[in-house]
Amino acid sequence: MRLSAAFIPTLKENPADASIVSHQLMIRAGLIRPLAAGMYTWLPLGLRVLNNIADHIRVVMGDIGGQEILIPTLQPDDLWAESGRLDSYGDEMLRLKDRHGRGMIYGPTAEEAMTDLFRKNVRSHKALPQLWYQIHWKFRDEIRPRFGVMRGREFLMKDGYSFDVSEDAAAETYNQIFGAYMRLFQRLGLRAMPVRADTGPIGGKLSHEFHVLADNGESGVFYDPAWHDVDTSALTLNDCAHLYAATDDLHDPKTWTGKPLVETKGIEVGHIFTFGTRYSDPMQAKVTLDDGTQAPVIMGSYGLGVGRLVGAMIEACHDDHGIIWPESVAPYRYALINIGMNDGACLETADRLYAKLGGREAVLYDDRDVGMGVKLKDADLIGLPTQIIVGPRDLKEGVVQIKDRKTGEKQMVGVDTLTPSFFQNSAQSPR
Amino acid sequence: MRLSAAFIPTLKENPADASIVSHQLMIRAGLIRPLAAGMYTWLPLGLRVLNNIADHIRVVMGDIGGQEILIPTLQPDDLWAESGRLDSYGDEMLRLKDRHGRGMIYGPTAEEAMTDLFRKNVRSHKALPQLWYQIHWKFRDEIRPRFGVMRGREFLMKDGYSFDVSEDAAAETYNQIFGAYMRLFQRLGLRAMPVRADTGPIGGKLSHEFHVLADNGESGVFYDPAWHDVDTSALTLNDCAHLYAATDDLHDPKTWTGKPLVETKGIEVGHIFTFGTRYSDPMQAKVTLDDGTQAPVIMGSYGLGVGRLVGAMIEACHDDHGIIWPESVAPYRYALINIGMNDGACLETADRLYAKLGGREAVLYDDRDVGMGVKLKDADLIGLPTQIIVGPRDLKEGVVQIKDRKTGEKQMVGVDTLTPSFFQNSAQSPR
Repeated sequence: MRLSAAFIPTLKENPADASIVSHQLMIRAGLIRPLAAGMYTWLPLGLRVLNNIADHIRVVMGDIGGQEILIPTLQPDDLWAESGRLDSYGDEMLRLKDRHGRGMIYGPTAEEAMTDLFRKNVRSHKALPQLWYQIHWKFRDEIRPRFGVMRGREFLMKDGYSFDVSEDAAAETYNQIFGAYMRLFQRLGLRAMPVRADTGPIGGKLSHEFHVLADNGESGVFYDPAWHDVDTSALTLNDCAHLYAATDDLHDPKTWTGKPLVETKGIEVGHIFTFGTRYSDPMQAKVTLDDGTQAPVIMGSYGLGVGRLVGAMIEACHDDHGIIWPESVAPYRYALINIGMNDGACLETADRLYAKLGGREAVLYDDRDVGMGVKLKDADLIGLPTQIIVGPRDLKEGVVQIKDRKTGEKQMVGVDTLTPSFFQNSAQSPR
Repeated sequence: MRLSAAFIPTLKENPADASIVSHQLMIRAGLIRPLAAGMYTWLPLGLRVLNNIADHIRVVMGDIGGQEILIPTLQPDDLWAESGRLDSYGDEMLRLKDRHGRGMIYGPTAEEAMTDLFRKNVRSHKALPQLWYQIHWKFRDEIRPRFGVMRGREFLMKDGYSFDVSEDAAAETYNQIFGAYMRLFQRLGLRAMPVRADTGPIGGKLSHEFHVLADNGESGVFYDPAWHDVDTSALTLNDCAHLYAATDDLHDPKTWTGKPLVETKGIEVGHIFTFGTRYSDPMQAKVTLDDGTQAPVIMGSYGLGVGRLVGAMIEACHDDHGIIWPESVAPYRYALINIGMNDGACLETADRLYAKLGGREAVLYDDRDVGMGVKLKDADLIGLPTQIIVGPRDLKEGVVQIKDRKTGEKQMVGVDTLTPSFFQNSAQSPR
């Protein structure tokens, strides 16, 4: 994309109402803009990151048999009456009436709608296991939305739901989800820690939260240093069940007598749990077994904040100059910066490199008629992995400057040797 | 995807409440299920089609400089008060209040939110033209939702908005959109007709509707047969401005005295129009010109029903046995059908072909323990472009049967010659 034509409104100053660095940088780098309290418009750059993360999620969920579906954002409230949550959910649930006066809610989650879909369409235990997920917008009417997309009201969430014939089968599904989440974080270039979580009023036997480790995370996280040696690409729950990890609401360092722990901060981005027949019992979601009897289906649900992951990634990957995107989710691979806009050779070379490196899908090409300082500052702020700086002096020697955004490492490279294969892309692409 | 594990609930009978063939087939082939009146859950097969169409739209919009953004589904109602539409929109607009009593609406469209985004972030005419679009869920509280996803309440729409410095520049943008729409329909394998449309109460100078031609469309369409010779891949509005086309609300065959016309039926899938300063005037969306003065930005908007396109495509592409997907949007490329589930050679061959032809992303593999009749009927119903039938008798001669879903043509092919390149895929993939 040519920056001269792009809608990427960068700002020099931090917005007054943004108190954490990810919120500040998402506004300043032109990823989002507020529409109302806790509700954000995703601008082109931000939406590309959001979609890249969603595509990574699709891969890891597909790998374990997950099937993507999409439930309407609005749901009839009688489903919620069936489960008992219409009364118990509280003011975070947005309630409304349609023109005929029928009660609806804006789904904060979809256990009821998924259970309803199951009971109407699945009859036999032979169809199990089923694992359905959606990546869709939810609304929770937070009384004090804050931290930008980290605690917004309308937000993008991956919510998965599993249906199994037995508690054992449900535990195996849970185990697969656990591994898929850990592989996802690895693909995203994030260090994340699973911690045992309270299953809360919803009940159920198994529950974990996943926290992205970041210096200014909201929760304290304490974990066994042996976690550092775990290979998350082949991780199962059983492999790590003996390794301690807990957040500060469950861990008290003053009374801890075990081995020394790593103490850090984390941002909760996911929460998974099994809840047995909590919904299938009241909603009569049953399967027929081989002996002809019927049994309620055993369920679990698996949440992941997609928008929240964008914020968490920025908290984990930035410096004083701006964002540092991991290659796997970067909105563009290359920042191509022409600092010789009045120089014919620079223009010609930059145009040629733009096409050669993949054009509008791979390259953000700064062809704006602004000074070099502005261009270099914006490139650091936006944080694409590789900057390619085309300038008149370098070009006389047939070279351009390459800067790695993460390490700051610079090198001069002959113009003709610059091809996509020159850049050894070690990261996994979302597709 | 293995059909034995997939959630694709096909039905033998037409659902009682589905009156048109696309609605019937979308339910029967397991693409959608109703959640409430005019609100549908998209199942795995349907969602894949929907996403494929969305990706084609991204390509044609990107080709003309369109930038994708995403505005929240809910919008503060004070923006709509600014434009005057809060009062005028009527009961199709869903209105609600948040927990603090602030008025919100579920966006039926986004002119106000886009104009607000523009006025807060764009200052100079040098940033123009800008063309922003989103592919997002809208809600219109139809009093009698019907025809499945063709006239639903919560529906997926591509809505684009342009910002230009002058009426001439806006007309040029309009022309580009016009061409992009025609190229989109060509990519989707659809014959669509642009007809001049009434700009309605919204005013403005230019407006066209796009109708997908289908025998049981809702509107009568009359057009000059010279349209058949138009090359839509390079079409501009000027190239076809002299060619007559109109729907039955504007055309009266009894009073027509011009050349003989083709008379057919169509389904409206898109509507585009310019509306000048209809929103930029009341909302004070201005740009600064070179002479330092300010001028209201000139706007247009460009709608396209994405879910509606799925229905229209089925209306245009089906037979008595089911759907006939064009390759460009088919949820999977191949239906691999093993009719010898008890035969070791069949199992081994089908498993091998499944992997060879692209596995879970490209192939729907019918490995269910059901009879041949059910499998072949479901394959025709679901309508993937190519069926590959693996049976014990054929396999003894080293061949499998290939059936083209569209033509019905069958051929026997040696198992070892079956590779993805064997199938000359002439259609454009969405990516």
